Amino acid sequence: MTDPAEVLALARTRGVMIATAESCTGGLIIGRLTDVPGSSDAVDRGFVTYSNAAKIQMLGIRPETLDAHGAVSEEIAAEMASGALANSQAGIAVAVTGIAGPGGSEHKPEGRVCFGIADSRGVRTETVEFGPLGRAQVRAATVEHALSLLKAALA
Amino acid sequence: MTDPAEVLALARTRGVMIATAESCTGGLIIGRLTDVPGSSDAVDRGFVTYSNAAKIQMLGIRPETLDAHGAVSEEIAAEMASGALANSQAGIAVAVTGIAGPGGSEHKPEGRVCFGIADSRGVRTETVEFGPLGRAQVRAATVEHALSLLKAALA
Repeated sequence: MTDPAEVLALARTRGVMIATAESCTGGLIIGRLTDVPGSSDAVDRGFVTYSNAAKIQMLGIRPETLDAHGAVSEEIAAEMASGALANSQAGIAVAVTGIAGPGGSEHKPEGRVCFGIADSRGVRTETVEFGPLGRAQVRAATVEHALSLLKAALA
Repeated sequence: MTDPAEVLALARTRGVMIATAESCTGGLIIGRLTDVPGSSDAVDRGFVTYSNAAKIQMLGIRPETLDAHGAVSEEIAAEMASGALANSQAGIAVAVTGIAGPGGSEHKPEGRVCFGIADSRGVRTETVEFGPLGRAQVRAATVEHALSLLKAALA
């Protein structure tokens, strides 16, 4: 398990604040980061872009990218992470978009989650297939992986 | 306990989507709403405005209101709820800002949370003193109260 307090400490050392852009986790990543007392000096804001309209309006996701690749894609994860960085005072942003389930959609299986990290070095993405663990488990695994990506990027 | 699935069902009946504007809960209200499978037809977006800059930029909070009343005030809760409604496709928004602790600040005690609800009927606010329960308990009680306010407003 990644200790959110460690992630915050690394961000302080780097002198950057953190933003999140969350779809399938619905705010649970920033919820975990802000469990930590005193987190306000390292957490700037979170964009919980549950609807496609929210992704477009809050993060500047391009409708063409949504049409071409669907909401659950590394292309959208990259645009979400970049958009969170551009529309905040954060120096690092993590983005997640996935199929929490139950059931897949858009020909994409339950448990597939795309991640994006944006910081001064650019944007990286990856896809993890957590499998059909059930909604709560997929969301919990996604929060944990997002924290581990933040920690690795800030280390 | 308020069942988030009931809140979503009421929103569907009313034909409105829900937005949240969260400070001390850090995304946990929309996190709870989106625990429910199929929530995407009733949940539009969440603004997790942890920093004051986020409150101003994402929700249009007026700096003068922050200066005059502080971030934990019914005045700010009202502006957060109105701002969430104005900057989303939602028909109802709930906002929370409070002192999760540990420890109070700005001469305000730990456990004080201000709530705002905005919908077509206007904006209502209230303050609840949960007391020094500890950070996790104050946040959990705030999520529960926010869901109960949404349920009452949609009933």
